[in-house]
Amino acid sequence: MNRSAALALDSKDSLAALRSSFELPCDQIYLDGNSLGALPSCVPERLRHAVEQEWGRGLIRSWNSSWFGASERVARRLAPLLGAHPDEVEVADSTSVNLFKQLASALHARPGRPRILIDADAFPTNLYMSDSAARWLDGHHFVDRVPAEQLFAKLGDDVAVVVLSHVDYRSGRLHPLAELTRAAHTVGALILVDLSHSAGTMPLELTDWAVDLAVGCGYKFLCGGPGAPAYLYVRRPLQVGLEQPLTGWFGHARPFDFEPGFDPAEGMARMRCGTPPVLSLLALEAALEVFDEVDLQALRQKAIGLSELLIRLVCERCGRYGIELGSPLDPALRGSQVSFRHPDAFPIVQALISQGVIGDFRAPDTLRFGITPLYTRFIDVWEAASRLSDVLERDEWKRFPREPEQTVT
Amino acid sequence: MNRSAALALDSKDSLAALRSSFELPCDQIYLDGNSLGALPSCVPERLRHAVEQEWGRGLIRSWNSSWFGASERVARRLAPLLGAHPDEVEVADSTSVNLFKQLASALHARPGRPRILIDADAFPTNLYMSDSAARWLDGHHFVDRVPAEQLFAKLGDDVAVVVLSHVDYRSGRLHPLAELTRAAHTVGALILVDLSHSAGTMPLELTDWAVDLAVGCGYKFLCGGPGAPAYLYVRRPLQVGLEQPLTGWFGHARPFDFEPGFDPAEGMARMRCGTPPVLSLLALEAALEVFDEVDLQALRQKAIGLSELLIRLVCERCGRYGIELGSPLDPALRGSQVSFRHPDAFPIVQALISQGVIGDFRAPDTLRFGITPLYTRFIDVWEAASRLSDVLERDEWKRFPREPEQTVT
Repeated sequence: MNRSAALALDSKDSLAALRSSFELPCDQIYLDGNSLGALPSCVPERLRHAVEQEWGRGLIRSWNSSWFGASERVARRLAPLLGAHPDEVEVADSTSVNLFKQLASALHARPGRPRILIDADAFPTNLYMSDSAARWLDGHHFVDRVPAEQLFAKLGDDVAVVVLSHVDYRSGRLHPLAELTRAAHTVGALILVDLSHSAGTMPLELTDWAVDLAVGCGYKFLCGGPGAPAYLYVRRPLQVGLEQPLTGWFGHARPFDFEPGFDPAEGMARMRCGTPPVLSLLALEAALEVFDEVDLQALRQKAIGLSELLIRLVCERCGRYGIELGSPLDPALRGSQVSFRHPDAFPIVQALISQGVIGDFRAPDTLRFGITPLYTRFIDVWEAASRLSDVLERDEWKRFPREPEQTVT
Repeated sequence: MNRSAALALDSKDSLAALRSSFELPCDQIYLDGNSLGALPSCVPERLRHAVEQEWGRGLIRSWNSSWFGASERVARRLAPLLGAHPDEVEVADSTSVNLFKQLASALHARPGRPRILIDADAFPTNLYMSDSAARWLDGHHFVDRVPAEQLFAKLGDDVAVVVLSHVDYRSGRLHPLAELTRAAHTVGALILVDLSHSAGTMPLELTDWAVDLAVGCGYKFLCGGPGAPAYLYVRRPLQVGLEQPLTGWFGHARPFDFEPGFDPAEGMARMRCGTPPVLSLLALEAALEVFDEVDLQALRQKAIGLSELLIRLVCERCGRYGIELGSPLDPALRGSQVSFRHPDAFPIVQALISQGVIGDFRAPDTLRFGITPLYTRFIDVWEAASRLSDVLERDEWKRFPREPEQTVT
């Protein structure tokens, strides 16, 4: 396939116009939207208004006129991306903090079951927080880490909750959430899923699949900005009697009555804790506008098309240099990310960045490319593969240090 | 005292020029900086740069060039305001979330002591979180709520931690932190103080007073913007072996190695949890510039001068209408806030707001006026007292509903 053929794919792409909703540097090919989503064009003006008018002029009154309503407005925009009812969604805190809340509420909802069953390759925070819940809460729980493919087999009636990263952040493997939810329910366990690497790239049907609990971050494919507030989902039937330990005043039924006792708000509002970071929250709210009217099925198909092209081109042109596919070959088993493996992945990624292609490295040997179908073009993928093959052919990566500096998911 | 005399006080005020560092609406007298601080003039441009350049153009690379360093830069700016070493300060999450971390770490550091001793009039989140820590952590603790003046007498060697709101959010009473810290230490207890209503208005000497743990919010007198990230302080000797349950990846010693086990970062970085809300964090960082070179002793003296004037004018002109002082008369016992009481406080505050004076109401009967010495002028206080007396004299408040709507601290 040549350059013109890639351009032809873009010209036939029904979602191509969405790219104009983003501010993207014209001299970069950005394949790291699974770390930090690009800037939606509507955000700068919204934030300028929030700072200068709402904070500067409105001052405290802007809580009533705009800010209090923000989390509900965000929930309404997030719900269709998750396949959830708006009253099943809340936005608050970070994914990490929300994991702790959800773990605690799950253990509380399934008393007498000591086991937390978790994918051993889950994102590290999921592992750390499961350990913390077992250690710091009542002390009657333990964590059972097993390879993802063994989660089904390891289910049992002593499991309180199964913790799953929907898409593996290294390999991009997409785990069978609906099936695992059904299996967990057959033994009476709950499921808690981290959607950070899937939401915004594919249709999700949390309510239909009867997923119990979910968390996810706002700054990857949702494009809410660096460290954007995270979200939580709890399915309706489980919200009755739901309790969690981070009982800040924003989760109170009547926060402005300043009552001495905690009476949790109705529904998902009880999953809030303290005052939200309003500026970051409003950036996320504005960013989610981009998804209005987007057909998630079409988005997923485009992501698959882009990923298939990247895999084909890289395998054709770079296989001879020792690059191997690190993601599942079957697109149905892959999120919106393609990973390759190479012993010198780190300097290769650095060389590629110097050539204007931004992907990232994950230790020890993974080159990771995020595919954001909202703004990634077929020509971007073609160029990325082409520059990767140049970097390898010319040994350009050998000019870069072999040891990593800090990078971020 | 007449208007000219108030203007004369402003003309002699050595801190008067600081007001020009803020964007304040010219048609409002803003006495609610203890709910939400005004907008520092440097913030809009900093945020514009953060959004358009750092996020929009720098994308993921801005983590290395700017964002990772932000919490350390904020800690360096906060430290002198707290009388702490920079390595005793961290910025993360909300005050509520940080209270949970600090309570858990305190209970962990004082094993075998079942009692959490707390001021019964503490800010509600402090009460709720203490209850949650007792209920959700190992279950061997209980909360003892006593009036603040009894905290000394109720100390005992079964107390793990004393929880104090430095300034009472309703009455403005300033509690004797240094003395209570000494008393707590005599029985081996720790002290955890919430500085939300004091930091930024008076000199604090956390290190010298040997205060153990502190939290506080960034959006009141620190002017960091709505829901700005909060901070934590832990004194150096207590940082050895410090542990807390919210073990997100940002608190790991090597977050970018994505290790399966949690190894806490050195020092205060272990009090971080998830990815911080960067836009809100950068607004706080810029806002704290305002405090560079500010003499905290002079700031405190100005706050006292403003408060004394407000009390004197209101008592002279409004006493006949049933307005009573709700704050301590002695300025040494008062934070940077003056409260008055009246059975119809709510409609009176509403009427005052309609006259361009923004204070706030706290149930059941408190009119609350925040004094922010960075930007509040003597003429503002004079005008506020004058308009309050007009509102009362003309019964203007009777046109307003007697029941409160939502307001925010």
